[in-house]
Amino acid sequence: MSGRARLANDEMAELVQKHPDRFVGFACALPLNDVEAALWELDRAVGDLGALGAQVFTNVLGLPLDDPIFDPIFARLEALDRAMWLHPTRNATWSDYPTETASDFGLWWSLGWPYETAAALSRLVYSGSMERHPKLKVIAHHGAGMVPHFSARLAMGPGFRQTKDSLPRPPLEYFRRFYADTALFGAQHAVQCVLDFFGPDHVLFGTDMPLGPPDAVEETIADIEGCDLSDLERSAVFADNVATLLAIPEPNR
Amino acid sequence: MSGRARLANDEMAELVQKHPDRFVGFACALPLNDVEAALWELDRAVGDLGALGAQVFTNVLGLPLDDPIFDPIFARLEALDRAMWLHPTRNATWSDYPTETASDFGLWWSLGWPYETAAALSRLVYSGSMERHPKLKVIAHHGAGMVPHFSARLAMGPGFRQTKDSLPRPPLEYFRRFYADTALFGAQHAVQCVLDFFGPDHVLFGTDMPLGPPDAVEETIADIEGCDLSDLERSAVFADNVATLLAIPEPNR
Repeated sequence: MSGRARLANDEMAELVQKHPDRFVGFACALPLNDVEAALWELDRAVGDLGALGAQVFTNVLGLPLDDPIFDPIFARLEALDRAMWLHPTRNATWSDYPTETASDFGLWWSLGWPYETAAALSRLVYSGSMERHPKLKVIAHHGAGMVPHFSARLAMGPGFRQTKDSLPRPPLEYFRRFYADTALFGAQHAVQCVLDFFGPDHVLFGTDMPLGPPDAVEETIADIEGCDLSDLERSAVFADNVATLLAIPEPNR
Repeated sequence: MSGRARLANDEMAELVQKHPDRFVGFACALPLNDVEAALWELDRAVGDLGALGAQVFTNVLGLPLDDPIFDPIFARLEALDRAMWLHPTRNATWSDYPTETASDFGLWWSLGWPYETAAALSRLVYSGSMERHPKLKVIAHHGAGMVPHFSARLAMGPGFRQTKDSLPRPPLEYFRRFYADTALFGAQHAVQCVLDFFGPDHVLFGTDMPLGPPDAVEETIADIEGCDLSDLERSAVFADNVATLLAIPEPNR
């Protein structure tokens, strides 16, 4: 696995180098089944290959990200001042009902991935990971899943009650530290909901390309342009936020 | 169980009769572990006690609602022209990670209930239940869970591909037949998102009272008043939609 991550990162770096007109950088892959190897590969990808950060999945062989074994990864990302991209992972074997052995009608994807994303972010918040790593920059795919729409439930309820004595800040203060992309496949009401929750300074243009429906890029651009944003805020969402967050040098912006 | 549903329904009917200034009616409980008994109790609650419909949970002892055994319930509700209230049910034993045996930080509630609600509605759509029961009136709690925000994922993806040859209409046409309430605990961006997806004629004022935070009623009223609605639309959400949907007689409105 470590060898495969290395191979993938070498190829990504090569692509970026060959096409500077198309790519400003890449997020490296990490062999998270072996945290020591992952730290080694993270140092190499950032130091030697210029990776802008790392892509991490919402669970690692079924383990949640607040498992203490992953804490050194967050510390190293903070020390390197690089971002963490969070991508959902789950397949049809995650059934929706205890009487079934598989998820029917693709719900593991349509609903499961946004659930999984929000669960991972919630674990980082409630466990105190975000409190211990105040400089960790997390970019969550698909508008941070269920977080924006269900923010009021995350602010109170059992998660709040369980952690109110251990966390010095209210849960939503940590949730609002995350960055969310706009890959919502043409649901403008959802893009607006993401903007309303995170604020335009924590939303980044993203489309899921080359995945997603064929017209996802055009639809996402139209959605953002149709949202309630000033010119400055729109420019922030389309380009300035990500350039600042990833410290992309001026000539490449 | 049948005996308990009967007891509960008798008490609800008595409360409504005693306090006509506070209650226009009630949703009956059904013993869904025994569909024959549930049909009998539904007929009795509607015919003898004046129930406005039935409350059904998002799974019945772990079974999804599109299991064919529940089809007669939907047919009977249609024939009686009464509504079905859909309420989530799931507890901490529904773990979020395969490496864990319980859901931590109350995610089974904050995220699990909206997931469960959307999964149940999705099963009714994709299975063809909503196609077979075009007059079924389903009122989904908490803004229909994940449906509005993730509508674009439900419109396409594996669920759409699996059913495009069996369903005569696009999935969202069925999803938009549902009615959603506004019980989102003070997240105005989420209420607006629900209104944008379902349209103001399919959204009903609801607060989760007496559950939810102490100021949920005031906050929900303020959220609706702050949403982008005409006077007529606002009045529809607050009162007219539900009066029409449940055919509440004029003097009781």
